[in-house]
Amino acid sequence: MMPSVQLPDKEDIEGYFDRLYPLLRSITGEGLRETHKILSEIVPLEHFETPSGTKVFDWTVPKEWRVHDAYVVTPDGNRILDVQTNNLHLINYSSPFRGKVSKQVLDEHLYSLPDLPDAVPYIISYYKERWGFCISHTDRLLLPEGDYEIVIDTDFIDGSLTYSEAVLPGKSDQEILISAYTCHPSMANHELSGPLVTAFLYQCLASMKDRQLTYRFVFCPESVGVISYLAERGDLLREKTISAFVLNNIGLPRSFVYMRSSQGDSLGDRAVGCLAQKPEYPGVEFIDFYADGGSNWRHFSSPGFQIPTGCLMRCLLNGYPEYHTSLDNKNMISFAAIRESIKYMYHVCYVMENNRKFTNLFPFGEPQLGKRELYNNNIGGKYFDPSRQHSAIMWLLNLSDGDHDLIDVSTRANLDIDTVIDAAERLVDAGLIMPS
Amino acid sequence: MMPSVQLPDKEDIEGYFDRLYPLLRSITGEGLRETHKILSEIVPLEHFETPSGTKVFDWTVPKEWRVHDAYVVTPDGNRILDVQTNNLHLINYSSPFRGKVSKQVLDEHLYSLPDLPDAVPYIISYYKERWGFCISHTDRLLLPEGDYEIVIDTDFIDGSLTYSEAVLPGKSDQEILISAYTCHPSMANHELSGPLVTAFLYQCLASMKDRQLTYRFVFCPESVGVISYLAERGDLLREKTISAFVLNNIGLPRSFVYMRSSQGDSLGDRAVGCLAQKPEYPGVEFIDFYADGGSNWRHFSSPGFQIPTGCLMRCLLNGYPEYHTSLDNKNMISFAAIRESIKYMYHVCYVMENNRKFTNLFPFGEPQLGKRELYNNNIGGKYFDPSRQHSAIMWLLNLSDGDHDLIDVSTRANLDIDTVIDAAERLVDAGLIMPS
Amino acid sequence: MMPSVQLPDKEDIEGYFDRLYPLLRSITGEGLRETHKILSEIVPLEHFETPSGTKVFDWTVPKEWRVHDAYVVTPDGNRILDVQTNNLHLINYSSPFRGKVSKQVLDEHLYSLPDLPDAVPYIISYYKERWGFCISHTDRLLLPEGDYEIVIDTDFIDGSLTYSEAVLPGKSDQEILISAYTCHPSMANHELSGPLVTAFLYQCLASMKDRQLTYRFVFCPESVGVISYLAERGDLLREKTISAFVLNNIGLPRSFVYMRSSQGDSLGDRAVGCLAQKPEYPGVEFIDFYADGGSNWRHFSSPGFQIPTGCLMRCLLNGYPEYHTSLDNKNMISFAAIRESIKYMYHVCYVMENNRKFTNLFPFGEPQLGKRELYNNNIGGKYFDPSRQHSAIMWLLNLSDGDHDLIDVSTRANLDIDTVIDAAERLVDAGLIMPS
Repeated sequence: MMPSVQLPDKEDIEGYFDRLYPLLRSITGEGLRETHKILSEIVPLEHFETPSGTKVFDWTVPKEWRVHDAYVVTPDGNRILDVQTNNLHLINYSSPFRGKVSKQVLDEHLYSLPDLPDAVPYIISYYKERWGFCISHTDRLLLPEGDYEIVIDTDFIDGSLTYSEAVLPGKSDQEILISAYTCHPSMANHELSGPLVTAFLYQCLASMKDRQLTYRFVFCPESVGVISYLAERGDLLREKTISAFVLNNIGLPRSFVYMRSSQGDSLGDRAVGCLAQKPEYPGVEFIDFYADGGSNWRHFSSPGFQIPTGCLMRCLLNGYPEYHTSLDNKNMISFAAIRESIKYMYHVCYVMENNRKFTNLFPFGEPQLGKRELYNNNIGGKYFDPSRQHSAIMWLLNLSDGDHDLIDVSTRANLDIDTVIDAAERLVDAGLIMPS
Repeated sequence: MMPSVQLPDKEDIEGYFDRLYPLLRSITGEGLRETHKILSEIVPLEHFETPSGTKVFDWTVPKEWRVHDAYVVTPDGNRILDVQTNNLHLINYSSPFRGKVSKQVLDEHLYSLPDLPDAVPYIISYYKERWGFCISHTDRLLLPEGDYEIVIDTDFIDGSLTYSEAVLPGKSDQEILISAYTCHPSMANHELSGPLVTAFLYQCLASMKDRQLTYRFVFCPESVGVISYLAERGDLLREKTISAFVLNNIGLPRSFVYMRSSQGDSLGDRAVGCLAQKPEYPGVEFIDFYADGGSNWRHFSSPGFQIPTGCLMRCLLNGYPEYHTSLDNKNMISFAAIRESIKYMYHVCYVMENNRKFTNLFPFGEPQLGKRELYNNNIGGKYFDPSRQHSAIMWLLNLSDGDHDLIDVSTRANLDIDTVIDAAERLVDAGLIMPS
Repeated sequence: MMPSVQLPDKEDIEGYFDRLYPLLRSITGEGLRETHKILSEIVPLEHFETPSGTKVFDWTVPKEWRVHDAYVVTPDGNRILDVQTNNLHLINYSSPFRGKVSKQVLDEHLYSLPDLPDAVPYIISYYKERWGFCISHTDRLLLPEGDYEIVIDTDFIDGSLTYSEAVLPGKSDQEILISAYTCHPSMANHELSGPLVTAFLYQCLASMKDRQLTYRFVFCPESVGVISYLAERGDLLREKTISAFVLNNIGLPRSFVYMRSSQGDSLGDRAVGCLAQKPEYPGVEFIDFYADGGSNWRHFSSPGFQIPTGCLMRCLLNGYPEYHTSLDNKNMISFAAIRESIKYMYHVCYVMENNRKFTNLFPFGEPQLGKRELYNNNIGGKYFDPSRQHSAIMWLLNLSDGDHDLIDVSTRANLDIDTVIDAAERLVDAGLIMPS
C-alpha cells in the first residue's frame, strides 16, 4: 500500500482558487506575474523573465500587454462589456481603440457563440493586431441600434514574459518534468485546475521520504511561453527527463483521461497504466498522443526534444461545451476532484519511484520461503495460500532476473502494483532479492 | 489531392479488347506474339524470344505450339467444337490427332463442367501429351451415338517463347515492377483485364511529372514464361525492385481485392493500404500472400528472389464461377471498371512516388505557423482550426524526424494520405521541412 | 501422417496403477523408493539418493520419514483413521505421538473439508512439526465425546531423498526434459497419471526410428525433490535443454490443457500449439505460464535456470474439486485417457523431431513439379489440384529459405503439421529441398 500522504484541505485549495480566478492572465503581463507570485506561496518557485523581442527558436517574445481599461457605452448610455467585470469580455491581446462607431461596425468586432448563447467566449489574438469584445449571444441580440462609444485603453510595452520553475531533488538525477500553463484568464477547470494540482503535488512530493527521482516543476504560458522556457532549459531537459506530464483540465468530478506520450511506453505511461487497474480509480480512459491540438506537450515532444510527455486530464479538451468560455467557472469544478487529482499524480510518482528491477539472490530453483516466514500458512496439500501477497512473492522471485521491473511483474502477473511493491520490500528485507 | 491524370477513354480500351480477345494465346506461339505486338501500340515494348529447348533454371522452354485447324465431325455430319469458332474448344497445347473414333473414345477426350452446364471450360496440358476438346455440358449430353471424325491439326516446332518489357525511368533507379500475363486465350476478365490495365497504366505514368521511381513493365506467359523472364532479368530485379505488382482479374465491376506481398509491409502494400481508407475506393479487401495457388507472384517471391510482390484484383481468382471458362467474356467485365483500375494503380504509384521522409528544420518546439500563413485562421481560444489540412501540418512537424515517412504519418494521424502529401508540400514550400 | 506407434495396453497401465496406488509416498521414504523401483520396470531408471542434511541450494534435504503405524481408538473402542486403510488419514510427515486425548484436543489435530464432506483431504506438513489426522467431514461429525487413544508411530531418520533419471539418446545432444513427480500418496489423477504417462512415453520414444533429439526423463518429489535434482543436474540442463515438460494431472477423460513455458514460444510450446489444430485433439486449451502456484515448472523456470518448461494436463490443478483428496481415486481417471495422453505427448515429440528448417535447392522461381510427379494431376486450367498435400508442397518451396521451420510453415499456411512434415519428406526425396 502506498504510504499515506498529507493532501491539502479542500478549503486551502479553494482559497488559492479564489485569489487566482479573477486575475487577467495572458502570455505576458501583470496578471501572469501575479499568478506566479501567488503560486510561489505553495511551491518555492524561481521566476524568470524573458524580455520582449528576445528570439526564442523560431519565435520572438512579444511585447508585454497592459490593460488599463476597456468597455463599451451603448447608445442609451449603459456601460457594458467592462473588462473590470469579466476579463473575458476583452479579446486577449486586443489592440487599443477609442472612438464612436455604429452598431454595424461594432458588430464586426464582437464575438459570441450562437450555440451557447449564455456564454462569453474566450478569444485571443496574440499575433494579429485586432480589437474586439466577447459577449454572450443573448446579450448581443439585445443590443440597440445607434452609435457606441468604444474604450480600449491597452498598450504594448517592452516588457517580458514570465515563467517559473522549482526543482525537488532526489537521489538520482533522472528527472520527472511536471508542467502546467498559466496564461488563461478567468476560467476554472481550464485552466486553474492544472496549476493548482501541480503546485500542491510539489508539497506532497516534498514530504516523500527517500525520494529517488528528481522532480522539475514548471509554470509557463502556452506556445511562446513554453518555447521561451525550452530555449533556456531544453538541452538540460532532453538529457535528464525520463518522463514528463502536462497537467490540465483536471478539476472536473469525472474519471481520469490520460493521453499517452508519443513514445507510448514511457515510465509515466506505464505507471498511469498500471494504476488504472485499481478499483479506487474507476474508469480511467487512455488516448494516444496527438500532435494536432492540445497543449504544451507538442513542444516537449517536438523532434528536437522528444521528451516523452503524457497529459493527465479528467476530460478531453473539447469534451465539454463550456470549454474556453465564461461558463467554465467555479460551478463546474470540484475541489474534492482537484484533491483526488493531486493524490492520483502522487500515486503515479510513488509507482515511478518504486519501479525498480531486482535480482534474485537465490536464483536456482525457489528459495525456501517457509523458514523465512514468507508463507502465510505453513501447511500444504489441500490447504494453500491463495493471497495476492503470496502470488506477488512467487512472481517476483521468478521475474527478478534484472530484466523485469515491478510494472512488468504487475502486468504479467495481473497483480495490483502496490501489492507488488510491498512484496518486493518484504523480499528485500528477507535478503532474497536486491535492486539490480 | 492527386493531380488529375488523363485516363484512356472507355472506347479506346474496348477497341483494344476487341482486337485481343479472339486471339488464340498460349505459353508460346503466334497468338501470344500478336498479342504483344498489339499491346506495343499502347506501351513501347521491347520483345524477347527465348528459343525452344533453352534451359531456364529448372525448366526447359517447350516447343512452340501451332494450331492449323481443329474440329470434330459428328456421326450426322455436323462440324462441331471448331477452334475457329471458339479457341477454348481445343485443349491448350493439344497434341495432333486425326481419325475416326467411337463416341465412347471421344468421351475420354472431352472436358465439360456438369455444375456449369453452359460453359466451355479452359483446359491446358502443357507438359503431358494429350489431345482433347472442351465442350459445354449441355452440348455434351446431346451428342449422338456413332463414330466421330477428329481433326486436330497442330504441331510443335522449334520456335520460341515471347515476353516483352518496357522501362519508364525515374530519377531514382529504385524500381517498381508491374506485370501481367498474356498466355490466356479468349477470356475477358481473366485474363485480358490485367494486360490492358498494365499497358494503359504505362501511358498514365509516362505523363507523370518529376517521376522519382523507375517502373518496369513486363508481359509474359505464366510459369515457364515468367521463369524465362527471370532467367534473364532476375539478378537485376532482385537488386533494384523495391515493390512489385501482379495485375490480374481486374476487370469486374467489384471492389478491389489486394493480396499483400509475402513480406506484408512492402512499399506497395503500404500504399495500397492507406488508399483503402479513401471513400472513393470503397470496400477494398486485403488478403495475405499465399504460395499455394495464384499466379506469377510465386516466382517473384521464391526464396532466390524474394521480390515483394502484391497482386491487385477485383475478385479472388476462384471468386467467380465463370473463372477459366467461356462465360468469362465481354458480358462479365466493365470498361469503366478497367478504367477505374488504371486510376487506382496510378494513385498507388502517386503515393509511392511521394512517400518520403522529412526532416523538420525547426525541430525545437513548434515553428511559428501564423507568421507563415500556415494557419487557416489567425485567431485563437474558442475558435480554432479543425481542418484536416491543419492536422496534417501539425502531425508532419511532429513526425518529421527522418524516421517516419508520409504513409507512417497518415496511419498514425489517421489522415488521408493525399492530405498528408499536400501538407508536406506546403511545409517544404514554407521552408519548414526538407526531404531527409 | 505420424508413423503408428505401439502404445501400451490399457490393462498394462492399469496393472502398474494398481501396484503404485496403495503406496505411502512422500518427499522421502520407502514408499517413494518402492514407487521408483516399480517404475523402473517400464523405464530403465538410474536411482539417486541424496542424504538427509545435504545442502541443496537454499534448502536442506530433510530427514527421511518412516511410518510404522498410525490410528486412533475411539472412546467406544473402535480403531479409526488407520493409515493402513488409507494412507491419506495421516498428515504426510506427521510427527510421532502417543497418548490419550480428549475429543477437544483431538479436534485441533483433525483436518476435514466441510464443502466436500465425503472426502479425506490430503494434508502435508513437511517443515513444521505437527501431528494430525485427515478425516471425512461426515465421519468427523459422528465422533462421540470422550477420550481418544492416539497412536502415531512415525520417526525421522538420517536417510535420503530419492530421485531417478533415464536418458534416451538421439543424434543431437539437444535435450528434451520430461518430468513427473512421485511424492503424492494414494491419489489417482494427481498424481499417478503423470508418472505413468512419463514412463510409458519413454517406451514409445525408445522405439522411434532415427531419433534426433535426446530425451531426459526425471522422476522426483516436488520442491526439495526437484531442487535436489537441480543441484546435481542444473548446469547440464541449462546448457542442453531446449524444451521441458512437466506432465501431471493428465489422467482425466477431458480435453488437454497446456500451460505454456515462461518464454511462451519454446519448441515445445510451438509443437503443442500446432497439434491443437488437429481434429483428433479437440478442444485443447492454452494458459500462460504462472509462477504463483503449480508445480516443478517454477524451479526449472527460475532465473538461475530459465529452462523453458510447459505443463501438459487434462484439467487445471484446481479445476476439479476432488483434487488433493481421497476422491481423486481410480473412479475419476480413465486408462484410455492416460493412453491418449501418451500418444499426444509422443505426437508432440514427433513434431519436435521433425521440425527442421530447409533450404530450397531450386530457389529461383518454382521448380518444375510436373516432371517430378509432384503434381497429383497433370492437367491445368479449370481443373486444379486443391489438395492440402499440394498446398504444403507449394508453401514449403516458398518458405524453404533457411529461416522458417516446419511449424512456421504450418502456421503461415494454415496447414496441418503432419501434412507439412510429409510434404517436406517428399520434397527431400525429390531432391528439391534439404535440411538447412
